[in-house]
Amino acid sequence: MPISDRIRKGVAAGSWIRRMFEEGAALKRRYGQENVFDLSLGNPVMEPPPEFARELRRLAEHPLSGMHRYMENAGYPETRAAVAEQLALETGIKFTLSEIIMTCGTAAALNVVLKTILNPGDEVILFTPYFAEFVHYIAHNDGVARVVPTDEQFIPELDALEAAIGAETRAVIINSPNNPSGAVYSEDIVNRLGEILDKKEAQYGRQIFLISDEAYRKIIYDGLKYSPVWRHHSQSIVVTSHSKDLALPGERIGYIAVHPDCSQREELVEGLVYCNRTLGFVNAPALMQHIVRHLQQVTISVIEYQKKRDFLYDRLIEMGYSVIKPRGAFYMFPKSPLEDDVAFVRELQEWKVLTVPGRGFGSPGYFRISYCVDDRTLEGCLTGFQKTAQKFNLR
Amino acid sequence: MPISDRIRKGVAAGSWIRRMFEEGAALKRRYGQENVFDLSLGNPVMEPPPEFARELRRLAEHPLSGMHRYMENAGYPETRAAVAEQLALETGIKFTLSEIIMTCGTAAALNVVLKTILNPGDEVILFTPYFAEFVHYIAHNDGVARVVPTDEQFIPELDALEAAIGAETRAVIINSPNNPSGAVYSEDIVNRLGEILDKKEAQYGRQIFLISDEAYRKIIYDGLKYSPVWRHHSQSIVVTSHSKDLALPGERIGYIAVHPDCSQREELVEGLVYCNRTLGFVNAPALMQHIVRHLQQVTISVIEYQKKRDFLYDRLIEMGYSVIKPRGAFYMFPKSPLEDDVAFVRELQEWKVLTVPGRGFGSPGYFRISYCVDDRTLEGCLTGFQKTAQKFNLR
Repeated sequence: MPISDRIRKGVAAGSWIRRMFEEGAALKRRYGQENVFDLSLGNPVMEPPPEFARELRRLAEHPLSGMHRYMENAGYPETRAAVAEQLALETGIKFTLSEIIMTCGTAAALNVVLKTILNPGDEVILFTPYFAEFVHYIAHNDGVARVVPTDEQFIPELDALEAAIGAETRAVIINSPNNPSGAVYSEDIVNRLGEILDKKEAQYGRQIFLISDEAYRKIIYDGLKYSPVWRHHSQSIVVTSHSKDLALPGERIGYIAVHPDCSQREELVEGLVYCNRTLGFVNAPALMQHIVRHLQQVTISVIEYQKKRDFLYDRLIEMGYSVIKPRGAFYMFPKSPLEDDVAFVRELQEWKVLTVPGRGFGSPGYFRISYCVDDRTLEGCLTGFQKTAQKFNLR
Repeated sequence: MPISDRIRKGVAAGSWIRRMFEEGAALKRRYGQENVFDLSLGNPVMEPPPEFARELRRLAEHPLSGMHRYMENAGYPETRAAVAEQLALETGIKFTLSEIIMTCGTAAALNVVLKTILNPGDEVILFTPYFAEFVHYIAHNDGVARVVPTDEQFIPELDALEAAIGAETRAVIINSPNNPSGAVYSEDIVNRLGEILDKKEAQYGRQIFLISDEAYRKIIYDGLKYSPVWRHHSQSIVVTSHSKDLALPGERIGYIAVHPDCSQREELVEGLVYCNRTLGFVNAPALMQHIVRHLQQVTISVIEYQKKRDFLYDRLIEMGYSVIKPRGAFYMFPKSPLEDDVAFVRELQEWKVLTVPGRGFGSPGYFRISYCVDDRTLEGCLTGFQKTAQKFNLR
């Protein structure tokens, strides 16, 4: 047997999601790519903004000496300083490059953070629905995932959080705007969450990290504002990337930011840099570091995503689906008309519409739609949703 | 305490090498970068070849639609096919894209492989001197490193290997051309090594992987040829990157190649792709995948490195240093004139020459010189080597 027992389990645990993808791929082969409406992936259809293309051309035409060589494992000081400056501008907190580590995207950042802070058996709290990969990241780093529910608006149930925190709790991961629900946490929620963590830290005499996955920070609609964690808990670590705000998911460029007031911050950062190096990331890709240094204030056109949300949300509501209106990111998480979300996702497949069952996000009874797709797909999927709604008498 | 016990140990274990780097950095601040001769890092001074610059310009000027988006976690099929085609050409073995997984460099590739194949406690055999990071990679993936010596030419002692393999042995890592010794293994050695592994697999009824780190495969001197592992052991996995052959170490682009005849190859590849995704690499950087696809036959000018080797080797021998002539890569691993290699490295520091003590590579009593530096550094370091040779009466 070439693969280890734990990896076999991991592969198997994810295999039914994978099966969905494979069934989707088979549909595409059978009916042609253009006749299948794939809403299953968070792979932004937009191209990077023009400022990105310009920077790339500039560096391609006028390469810097040594611009593809190794740099410090934490990243180029100039890039880290640019990130720190932008964070300071956005939050009023005095970040410096010492608190920033450039990473190969958010997934890398999370693995580095978890490896650094977790002793085997430490608990990490997640809120349902959660980004499915979190559970693999926690398992790889010998942590134990502990799941806390959210309310019907996908906002954390703070009483349940308080009850779930114990002596083994090492971290709480939040993700707002949320994948898969699109929920955006209010300042008040983040504030109350921070209060609970402060209280529990005092009770257990232990640092409890608030890890905030902010991959969608810049993709918020309806004039809502992002609520940063920094003012509400000192033991905070942000992990994020430019995958979504600059539409660069394949390039693996992101960063870790540590609260300047985090206890023993220097030791923490030293551990993070060590893990960034020795987990095999070594450093974030050099060329992308050179580019994003100049793009900290640039974002793709959020209004385009908002239009897509409005279009699809309005249609689904008309058809009788039960959907909480997403306020950010580019996902919707409707209730599954069938109790069995996998069965419902297969019903949509009959109409060549690909979505992901909610149980992949810890929330059976729902399904995820990714609407960062072209308009052809968005329009083309409506027939399938309509026919399926009729079949189950949603209206 | 913000970091876990095991990471604290890892950081501490590496801290004296780090101390060397920090002492070097302090020297640079004090005397100016241009007055310090840094031979401590494998950071190639060469720029990537002109073909790379051309491809980068082409893509910057005529971007492909969606060229920065997610692709399959194993990488673009076109890139994997190009790698397979080149490997088939070089080795005569029928590789296809199904055996290739694009990775964020060799460090990523090794972590992915180890995570996939190791059950906790499985042993991984290394030959001294070994690339220092291997021990961290093995530890992170819950393996146990077992060290086997090489002879005075830095060629594996095969009797010692045979004696070291037991029921717990899961893999043997080789690295030829070698960092830090510059040794290049002959076909005969690889053949005998394969025979031992075949025999031990039969004896213990267990797959024993030969993991070949080929980061320096294309940097071989004196007309010697690289000896591929493929013909000598079916349970072989190659990990490599374009960091050295295309001088792109900061870009993190490499790959895993699995022997087409490896047992249960499909399951192995599935595990590797799962680990590539869930360890947080997700995929190798997209833009670099597009570029290296067209550069599989391109290499930096190896003769330039050979000239640097000849220049430095000849001078060191004249001064009385004991050096095995390196046949590949861009390192030399001379005997330390002092038994205490750290003390000797500090002697060289007195002359502002930075090297790395051999104990960082499992071989105390030696020190590593990295000669992939500019000629100014190569010439400038000679005074320090000369004065130190005189101090210890090498001639």
